[in-house]
Amino acid sequence: MATVKLLTDAEIEAIPAAKAVFDDIRATRKSDFVNNFWRALANDPANLKRVWDTLKSVMTVEGALDPLVREMIYIAVSTANACQYCVQSHTAAARAKGMTDAQHGELLTIIGLAAQTNHLAIAMQVPADPEFEVQ
Amino acid sequence: MATVKLLTDAEIEAIPAAKAVFDDIRATRKSDFVNNFWRALANDPANLKRVWDTLKSVMTVEGALDPLVREMIYIAVSTANACQYCVQSHTAAARAKGMTDAQHGELLTIIGLAAQTNHLAIAMQVPADPEFEVQ
Amino acid sequence: MATVKLLTDAEIEAIPAAKAVFDDIRATRKSDFVNNFWRALANDPANLKRVWDTLKSVMTVEGALDPLVREMIYIAVSTANACQYCVQSHTAAARAKGMTDAQHGELLTIIGLAAQTNHLAIAMQVPADPEFEVQ
Amino acid sequence: MATVKLLTDAEIEAIPAAKAVFDDIRATRKSDFVNNFWRALANDPANLKRVWDTLKSVMTVEGALDPLVREMIYIAVSTANACQYCVQSHTAAARAKGMTDAQHGELLTIIGLAAQTNHLAIAMQVPADPEFEVQ
Amino acid sequence: MATVKLLTDAEIEAIPAAKAVFDDIRATRKSDFVNNFWRALANDPANLKRVWDTLKSVMTVEGALDPLVREMIYIAVSTANACQYCVQSHTAAARAKGMTDAQHGELLTIIGLAAQTNHLAIAMQVPADPEFEVQ
Amino acid sequence: MATVKLLTDAEIEAIPAAKAVFDDIRATRKSDFVNNFWRALANDPANLKRVWDTLKSVMTVEGALDPLVREMIYIAVSTANACQYCVQSHTAAARAKGMTDAQHGELLTIIGLAAQTNHLAIAMQVPADPEFEVQ
Repeated sequence: MATVKLLTDAEIEAIPAAKAVFDDIRATRKSDFVNNFWRALANDPANLKRVWDTLKSVMTVEGALDPLVREMIYIAVSTANACQYCVQSHTAAARAKGMTDAQHGELLTIIGLAAQTNHLAIAMQVPADPEFEVQ
Repeated sequence: MATVKLLTDAEIEAIPAAKAVFDDIRATRKSDFVNNFWRALANDPANLKRVWDTLKSVMTVEGALDPLVREMIYIAVSTANACQYCVQSHTAAARAKGMTDAQHGELLTIIGLAAQTNHLAIAMQVPADPEFEVQ
Repeated sequence: MATVKLLTDAEIEAIPAAKAVFDDIRATRKSDFVNNFWRALANDPANLKRVWDTLKSVMTVEGALDPLVREMIYIAVSTANACQYCVQSHTAAARAKGMTDAQHGELLTIIGLAAQTNHLAIAMQVPADPEFEVQ
Repeated sequence: MATVKLLTDAEIEAIPAAKAVFDDIRATRKSDFVNNFWRALANDPANLKRVWDTLKSVMTVEGALDPLVREMIYIAVSTANACQYCVQSHTAAARAKGMTDAQHGELLTIIGLAAQTNHLAIAMQVPADPEFEVQ
Repeated sequence: MATVKLLTDAEIEAIPAAKAVFDDIRATRKSDFVNNFWRALANDPANLKRVWDTLKSVMTVEGALDPLVREMIYIAVSTANACQYCVQSHTAAARAKGMTDAQHGELLTIIGLAAQTNHLAIAMQVPADPEFEVQ
Repeated sequence: MATVKLLTDAEIEAIPAAKAVFDDIRATRKSDFVNNFWRALANDPANLKRVWDTLKSVMTVEGALDPLVREMIYIAVSTANACQYCVQSHTAAARAKGMTDAQHGELLTIIGLAAQTNHLAIAMQVPADPEFEVQ
């Protein structure tokens, strides 16, 4: 049960600042589909614009990491933060960018292993090794 | 302040089950250095063996993902779980596997952005789009 | 799917210790509606009383912070802890106390930004500045 | 132990994109002191600028919430995310904005109570009440 | 909405590596019922085997802790990690192992109290007492 | 670096409400040592009393669970919440109540395993089995 309204296309039309962002989402993704996250965020057009501009510049432009790798990192963080919607939307996005079942399986295996050793290291309060020091 | 003793090489020598794992860590990594996590975990040789065997098979063998990508996923999970030791050790490991400053910067940017949208999606309780359904 | 039964008013009637707390909830809130959290917690009347007494004394009496601010802090913590029910119930409570859409939007923006810089600070393991020291 | 270098003023001087942000931080805050978070983030000048611009527009301009309330919300999120540095820096910031001991005590009390009921609601998997529905 | 397919018994039949694990789950638990977690994990038979083998050796063999205590620890971790499925499945498992309502109530009370003092200790950044040092 | 002052015995003497709680801590534990958590919390005597009274009634009186089991549940929650101080203090407390190395090792193993399957279940968004329904 959402805590804000999910704005329809008709409602977005009536808010120019939100409409401009939705137009850019559609143009950037070359698709008419705009998912619920943006329809919820559109209740605050200033934050909608801020988050979309950042996401667009971080996730869609050329960079040092492969676009699929970026989606897998996103899934990893979303899992550890227990964000159901984010896990679902970014798994769909990773699949759309070509993630294979084998890659998905390996991603989940690493996430699970990391969680396991994270908890062990915290429970044992392991002190940092001097060898880790940044040169 | 660790909650268990960090076993020295001399103490490890006296525990054959732990010694066997330490020998395998050194052989696999081709290095004499064994970091504190394993010295702490060695207090429970059965778990030491279990965790090392899993980590070895997940992180060091050939797979569907590049070894450096695996380390970056590990950093992402460790950050979201607030595991200081894990962030430090896996950042060092990623650097040892060739992570550039540009890749590190992009990794951190994605982690931060994911955390931001994770919290927004949770605070708004955005419902899943039917379009995300696995075929 | 709840892991405990949600007790109905008839079932509460049969447990005097729970009944007393429900009576106080209704009297304090000047409303007959008692939400599911208390119906679940009523399976353990001692904890029901303990939690309600604390919540009543922390959230409803006059204090150093405005009642609406208290609800917004509650939403912030609940979001970071990924508690769906708590986000939903305290957003409803904040609205009932007069939270405007602009305030809600700003609250969400701050929560998202804090999460972003939280993750960045953890991933970089930034050391405390001596200037933060409590005098 | 930081996972990136903390850039000194001399090092910042040599990176024009970072220098411009540091100048703006100093001008906005009317203080020469720039805390470690920004010195760490300056390793990636693009993200430094992005995060600072967002933080400046969210935390320092006039808005729907009092500046001190914003800092208290920041502390709440940082606590639940277990970000030590963020708890320390934003508690110092809140004090600088006039947070009294009584307000700090009440903030901590609410954070603790919220965490308690968050965990209870998750452990009992309490279903949302229809009454919470956004109109 | 799951991000992977939940494999049916017919689909499991066609994957010998997954079939062997499902046979062992059924034999170990002396029950035909195999819950959804394993049907999801079966998409990656190697990880299915690894996780089941670990879970079997940790949760079902004789050890230093009572089997019911192990389930209660599992519920505690799952709650703090906000894993809905895990809270539900391990609460059912604990009940099947004889957990009484009184024990469940006390477990939840401790989880809630721990969460409260965890957040207070983090918000206050309490330094470790030298008295905690492991001898 | 604490965000509040750690009150000394002399400072506690001057605050009757805090002094009364410290006296009760000492009497209940039959020890003069009062650890830093309470010295930090004493800055807010009302919350000090509330938290101590709850902790005393939950952790020290006879109940449905063994006192050592309660401490182990506390460690489990504190680990998942990444509370360093809490992990350290409750591990010390568990040892003081007789926790053996074998029990500690098994506790850590379960915590690590639970974290692993928590993350897997979240990443796969496994739906609840109808069989888990509370009767």
